[in-house]
Amino acid sequence: MAISKGPQVFPRTEFLRRLTAVKSEMVRRDIEALVVFNVHNITYLTGYTTPSGYVPDGLVVLIHEEEPIFILRQMDAPAAIHQTFMSRDSILAYPEALIGTPEKNGYDAIIDFLHEKGLGNRGVGFELGDLRFHAVTKFRTRLPNAKLEDCTNLVTWIRIIKSDLEIAIMREAAAISDAAMQRAAEVIRAGEREADVAAEIEATLARGANGKPGTNIASNAICSSPRTGTAHIRWSEDVFREGSQINIELAGIRHGYTVPLMRTFSIGEPSERLNRVHVAHLAGLDAALETIRPGKTCSDVANAFHRTYEKHGFKKESRCGYAIGIGWIEPTASFQSGDMTELKPNMTFHLMLGNWFDEDFGYMFSESIRVTESGVEVLTNTPRRVITL
Amino acid sequence: MAISKGPQVFPRTEFLRRLTAVKSEMVRRDIEALVVFNVHNITYLTGYTTPSGYVPDGLVVLIHEEEPIFILRQMDAPAAIHQTFMSRDSILAYPEALIGTPEKNGYDAIIDFLHEKGLGNRGVGFELGDLRFHAVTKFRTRLPNAKLEDCTNLVTWIRIIKSDLEIAIMREAAAISDAAMQRAAEVIRAGEREADVAAEIEATLARGANGKPGTNIASNAICSSPRTGTAHIRWSEDVFREGSQINIELAGIRHGYTVPLMRTFSIGEPSERLNRVHVAHLAGLDAALETIRPGKTCSDVANAFHRTYEKHGFKKESRCGYAIGIGWIEPTASFQSGDMTELKPNMTFHLMLGNWFDEDFGYMFSESIRVTESGVEVLTNTPRRVITL
Repeated sequence: MAISKGPQVFPRTEFLRRLTAVKSEMVRRDIEALVVFNVHNITYLTGYTTPSGYVPDGLVVLIHEEEPIFILRQMDAPAAIHQTFMSRDSILAYPEALIGTPEKNGYDAIIDFLHEKGLGNRGVGFELGDLRFHAVTKFRTRLPNAKLEDCTNLVTWIRIIKSDLEIAIMREAAAISDAAMQRAAEVIRAGEREADVAAEIEATLARGANGKPGTNIASNAICSSPRTGTAHIRWSEDVFREGSQINIELAGIRHGYTVPLMRTFSIGEPSERLNRVHVAHLAGLDAALETIRPGKTCSDVANAFHRTYEKHGFKKESRCGYAIGIGWIEPTASFQSGDMTELKPNMTFHLMLGNWFDEDFGYMFSESIRVTESGVEVLTNTPRRVITL
Repeated sequence: MAISKGPQVFPRTEFLRRLTAVKSEMVRRDIEALVVFNVHNITYLTGYTTPSGYVPDGLVVLIHEEEPIFILRQMDAPAAIHQTFMSRDSILAYPEALIGTPEKNGYDAIIDFLHEKGLGNRGVGFELGDLRFHAVTKFRTRLPNAKLEDCTNLVTWIRIIKSDLEIAIMREAAAISDAAMQRAAEVIRAGEREADVAAEIEATLARGANGKPGTNIASNAICSSPRTGTAHIRWSEDVFREGSQINIELAGIRHGYTVPLMRTFSIGEPSERLNRVHVAHLAGLDAALETIRPGKTCSDVANAFHRTYEKHGFKKESRCGYAIGIGWIEPTASFQSGDMTELKPNMTFHLMLGNWFDEDFGYMFSESIRVTESGVEVLTNTPRRVITL
C-alpha cells in the first residue's frame, strides 16, 4: 500500500518560494536543470532529512517544472514520499542493484534521467564542490555534450537569509540547546563519568524542549581537563574531578536546523586565568553584538570582537563564527576580517568565540544569533558565565 | 603547556603492523608517499577519532619513515597529540587562517609538505575517491610533476581482516548495541513519544555496557507504523500506538568501531504477515550463518540466504550485508550475489537482512558477525524474535 504523507513542517508555498529563488539564479546562469547533491540543500528544497549518507541522492530542479525531481535509492523512496512536499510522481527510485557495485551507481540513474529529459546537450548546473572526484568523471564521460556549469553553493547562498518560518524552527532548536546545557549543569560533578554526562546531554537533545522534540543528534563535544585545549573530542572514558574544567559544545536540531551553543564549566572555583579569559570574552561578545545590524559586514563584526578582545590581552586565531541553518555550518559567510558579506535581516550565525590558547588550555563560549531589522536577536538563552558547580 | 598523551586503545606495535601492510602495498605500486584523507582510514592508522568533519585532514604515510605525518588544522592538533600513537613531531598544524576562505585551504598545507619533502616529482598515492572535485583539481595543479596514483580503498581493503585486538573492541561495541536494543524493549509502549525512546537509546549508547562506555553516537533509526516501509528515518514527532510495529537499527561504537544491529518490535501481537516474514528471515539467517566459513565467498552467503528466503515466498532486493569495522560501513565486500570476495578469519560483517516490501511495510532484522577459523561468531546477542510488548 501507499505510504501516507507525513506532517509537513513548512507549507508548500515556502518550498515554492525557495525554488523560485533558485530558478531565478538558474535563468541568470542560463541553465535548464540544476542537480543538487548537497544533503542540506536537498533538505532546504524538499523537507527530506533522511539521507543514507553513503549513496548518491540527486535532486533535479528543472527550470520549467514547478516541483523538482528527487532521484534516490529504492530503500529510501518511501521516506522521501513521506517527508517531502512533492507529489509521489516527483520521487524516482533507482534499484538497490546500484548499491555496493564498483561499475554502476546512483549517479548513473541521475544521468539517465537527464538524457531522458533531453538535457544531454543543454546547460546543466552541478554542485561540483559537493561531488567526489569519481562522480565528476562519470558525469563528464556520460554527458559529453552537456554544458556543465559549476553551481557549488548556489543554493547555499540562497539559504543564508531565512524566512520567518525558518526562524521559528530555529528558535525551537535554540531552546533545545539551552535545555541540554542546563541538563549538563545538573549532572556534571566530580566522580561522574564523562560518558554518563554525554548520555544525559544526548537524551535531552532528543527529548527536546517546550514539547518540541529534537529530530536528530549532532556531533557534540565534551572537552574536559586535561583536554580543554582540544576542540572536537566527543567525550573521553575519564571521570570528572574536583577542579576539572569542562568545555561543552552542543546543538539542538529541529528538522535539520541546527543551533550550536558553547559554554565552559568548572567544578569548584574557576582559575584566575579562566576568569580573565571569560571577562575578555564577555567584552568581546558585547562588542560583536553591538556591531551586528543590517548594513554592517561580517568583517566589521569580527574586527569589533578582536579589537575589544585584544585590549584584554588575548588573541583568537580562529574565525569568530559562521552562518548557520540546516546542518551545523552553512559554508558561506564567516565572521572573520576581510569577509565583506553584508548583514541582512534574518541571517543567522553561530557567534563562535571558543579559543584554544595552549595545547592544554582552551575555553568555549558562544551564542547563536539572528540579524534583525535594526540589530540582533540572541536565539540561545543560557547564562553568560563560567558555570561553576 | 604540552597536552598529555591519552590512554592508548591499541599498543604501538598494532599501528606499526597496520602501517607495514600499507607500506607493502605502496612498494608494490611504486609510490613513496600515500596521502590518506578518509577519516576512517586515518582512525585505523593513528587512533584519531575527532575529525572536524568539514575541513581537510591528511595523513601522509612515507615509505621510509616509521611514523606517518598527520597534517590538520591548528584547533585539532592537540586532540591528535592526545589521541594518536605518534610522537608530537609527527603532528603538523596548519593555521586557522586556512579555514573558511575560498582560495586556500588545508589541502595547500598538505601539498606544501609534499614539496618540502621533495616528493613533487615522485610517485604519490591519493585516495581520489574520497576527495571532492575541487581538491583533486588543486592537487593536479599544484603537483604537476608528481606521478599521482589513485589509491582509493587501498587502506580500506587492508582493514577488512581485523586483528584479535580489534575484534575485542568490536565485542565491546556489540555489547553496547545489545544493551541499547534491550533498553528500547523496556521503554517502548503505547502513548510514548518516539523521541523519548530515541533519548533512552542514545543515552544507553553513550553509557555503554559492562563498564565500557560508547565513545560516539551513530545515526540510529526508529521507523514505526505507518513508516515501517522507510529505512533511515531517525525518529518522528509521533507517539507509539497499540498495534504499532517499530523497526529499529542502531549501533554501539567503541573508538570508531561500529557494530550495527536491527530488530523489529510490536506493541500487541504481531500481524500474521509480520510473523510469516520473521519465520522466513530466521530460516534465511540460519542458512547464511551455516554458509559462513573461510573459503566461502560473499556471494555464497548471499545465495544461501536468498535460496532459503525465496522458498518462503519472499524476495529481498537490497544486499544482505557489508563489511564493518571503523565507521558504519567498510566500502569493500558485500554479501551479494557476484561478490567473489573470499571469506577469511577475522573478517566482520553486518548480516543485514532488513527488507522493505511495500511503501508502508518493512521489517528489520540483522546480526553482526565475525568469520572464525572454522565458521562464524555472532557478535551481537539479542533474542532473534519480533520483540512483542
